[in-house]
Amino acid sequence: MTFGFKGNKPSRRQFLSGAAAVGAGALTATGAKAAGDPLITQVQDWASGTGDGVDATPYGLPIEFESDVRRRNVEWLTADTISSINFTPIHALDGTITPQGCAFERHHSGAIELKKSDYRLMINGLVDTPLVFTYADLERFPRENRVYFCECAANTGMEWAGSQLNGAQFTHGMIHNMEYSGVTLRTLLEEAGLNAAGDLKDKWVYVEGADASSNGRSIPMEKALDDCLVAFKANGEALRKEHGYPVRLVVPGWEGNMWVKWLRRIEVTDQAIESREETSKYTDTLADGTSRKWTWEMDAKSVVTSPSPQAPIRHGHGPLVITGLAWSGRGAITRVDVSKDGGKTWETARLAAPGEKMALTRFYLDTTWNGEEMLLQSRAMDETGYVQPTKNELREVRGLNSIYHNNCIQTWWIKEDGEAENVEVS
Amino acid sequence: MTFGFKGNKPSRRQFLSGAAAVGAGALTATGAKAAGDPLITQVQDWASGTGDGVDATPYGLPIEFESDVRRRNVEWLTADTISSINFTPIHALDGTITPQGCAFERHHSGAIELKKSDYRLMINGLVDTPLVFTYADLERFPRENRVYFCECAANTGMEWAGSQLNGAQFTHGMIHNMEYSGVTLRTLLEEAGLNAAGDLKDKWVYVEGADASSNGRSIPMEKALDDCLVAFKANGEALRKEHGYPVRLVVPGWEGNMWVKWLRRIEVTDQAIESREETSKYTDTLADGTSRKWTWEMDAKSVVTSPSPQAPIRHGHGPLVITGLAWSGRGAITRVDVSKDGGKTWETARLAAPGEKMALTRFYLDTTWNGEEMLLQSRAMDETGYVQPTKNELREVRGLNSIYHNNCIQTWWIKEDGEAENVEVS
Repeated sequence: MTFGFKGNKPSRRQFLSGAAAVGAGALTATGAKAAGDPLITQVQDWASGTGDGVDATPYGLPIEFESDVRRRNVEWLTADTISSINFTPIHALDGTITPQGCAFERHHSGAIELKKSDYRLMINGLVDTPLVFTYADLERFPRENRVYFCECAANTGMEWAGSQLNGAQFTHGMIHNMEYSGVTLRTLLEEAGLNAAGDLKDKWVYVEGADASSNGRSIPMEKALDDCLVAFKANGEALRKEHGYPVRLVVPGWEGNMWVKWLRRIEVTDQAIESREETSKYTDTLADGTSRKWTWEMDAKSVVTSPSPQAPIRHGHGPLVITGLAWSGRGAITRVDVSKDGGKTWETARLAAPGEKMALTRFYLDTTWNGEEMLLQSRAMDETGYVQPTKNELREVRGLNSIYHNNCIQTWWIKEDGEAENVEVS
Repeated sequence: MTFGFKGNKPSRRQFLSGAAAVGAGALTATGAKAAGDPLITQVQDWASGTGDGVDATPYGLPIEFESDVRRRNVEWLTADTISSINFTPIHALDGTITPQGCAFERHHSGAIELKKSDYRLMINGLVDTPLVFTYADLERFPRENRVYFCECAANTGMEWAGSQLNGAQFTHGMIHNMEYSGVTLRTLLEEAGLNAAGDLKDKWVYVEGADASSNGRSIPMEKALDDCLVAFKANGEALRKEHGYPVRLVVPGWEGNMWVKWLRRIEVTDQAIESREETSKYTDTLADGTSRKWTWEMDAKSVVTSPSPQAPIRHGHGPLVITGLAWSGRGAITRVDVSKDGGKTWETARLAAPGEKMALTRFYLDTTWNGEEMLLQSRAMDETGYVQPTKNELREVRGLNSIYHNNCIQTWWIKEDGEAENVEVS
């Protein structure tokens, strides 16, 4: 423990110089009041009595005052709620970990209930010995722990046609970020033996879930052997029912529908199955009517989560924290820039921690706001050198027929009163 | 993405050589059955219908089958539940993140309810300008995100007198590990100004909560300016009521009672207050009747979480995953050893990720068990070179009058039938 200023923390001077610029005294610029200021209640009262005992909440839930921080679905988006989506309240979260309780859901035929004792996972196809694993079997293989984001390919999909959903939860909330514990898919494939498959370079695995939709997807063997996890825990505890309890596949950096829930079967094949979910769905139709084939990786992307339409500026002029999330399916985020003027000028944001591969990165811009209108944007860069495109740049390449893989720069119009709105800039 | 074996993953040969050693075929050693084996049900049935829609659980809870994975209190430990403790179910968790819902609670006068709109934080004493912050004020300062463990000083305290609690949840479950978002205490102290305090080397801050107990504690200025956080989020979302909503202090690596909840006031002082919580409580009485003064840091410690009394071995002979947690209040864990024979011989465990300062580290030993009895232990080492002591080594130095700061090596007796019991080895 050293006794001195830390080089990597915002210095007081830096912070107060921003505050001083508003013309108010530095001490009140943040809203903090000198003790005794008649504008605010004096020091916090002590509680007048005792509170809840330790037997009150064997499994805790958020306090009632936070009841609006929850998943939300949009009724008009889908015909029913069984094959539908809800959204993570990213506008109200900070840090990078998403609690399971408010992590978005996407189901093709609803969240099913499976018991561990009933659970079976088959590996078959071009393997030396087809195998069936019980849940208890899986727990006997060497485990890994990794934090990864999972993003639905349709996240931000409504933005192709213009800004229709007003709030980061709805435009960008088909994403969550958790610490997974599980066995590598490679370990299980090797347990079944891959000699029968011959040259692995042109082989695939076809993975399917036990829900009625099966949601089958083909994954190239190269990815299957690289970093996929057969996961049974998220953020330390069992997967939630809606996230595939007891076992789901984790396919780092790749579109969420490949992260098959209630994982039932893994078949080694010599070609892609070209299932419903990778032909009629989860392909992107271009302007000329042809479709992009195999769009697995999620491109680098970011969004300002606050201020945003659901998280307007409610405080006065002076210091303002702008914050958001950035991620890339191709590796680590290396830089995020923020623009207040719709992309004309950019400032480099501070990353709360160095970017980690295929995991959410939190960024902050500690700035000053004096009530001026802003066209707030963020722009992510990843370790491959890729730079997040504007909406128009993306439309030029991909046209307007797409649903999936919209990773464009998002714009929030911050008004003089601090309210925010989803807008487009030309 | 490279196409080949990864050097840092357990290789198939390594794993199967363990399995083969039991004399069973490699393919069935883990319990996995060749497809068609009559001993088990064939491949997992598909769901016969649709499941829950996305509006079923706006804020999700664990599935009903996991209802035993929850905080538990021990009725006879304390006179009532208001000034008491419950325990994290660490025997059932994996990875390192603790979900807020099952993270242990310790209250001195119960968990109180505070609204953000009512919340005030005062900084006074030897500062240039005493200040009062609202919750909204705090959100305007630069924020940090860090993962830290929080351990109650009394964790494992019952072990001084012998093994009385049967289960890792009860012996070691006064610990949790979360990603905190907040403002550094340094930032807020500097906002109030520390020129009035003069030489900071011999100064302190006295921190107190708004609950009836106040739970006041003195913290040396050096620590206050080093890494303490005034935190408002944990694992991305608001603190839970029972963890100090809306604001708690985070004092990395130091005993949990200093992590004042419902944080109400921070006073800069020229001496320690020597409050009730740091005199009659939270000191350790030695054999000669004197007490150790200022025992803030949590020493390096570890425990095997599975197998353990609440997580016995339920599968057959062959491959076994031994896993547990290690942590140190003095920095990062660098190594964990595991013994199966009560400390006579040791094997170095695999760390799931490099140790991070003052955060939980998950370790694994991928091994083979043929039904032999084991006296299972783990031993942590941290970056300072400190090695976790045996229970008897600790007793020699500290006597038997202590309650707090028991970081001894824990022993689980694994029986031939896979059941486990908390025992001592001489």
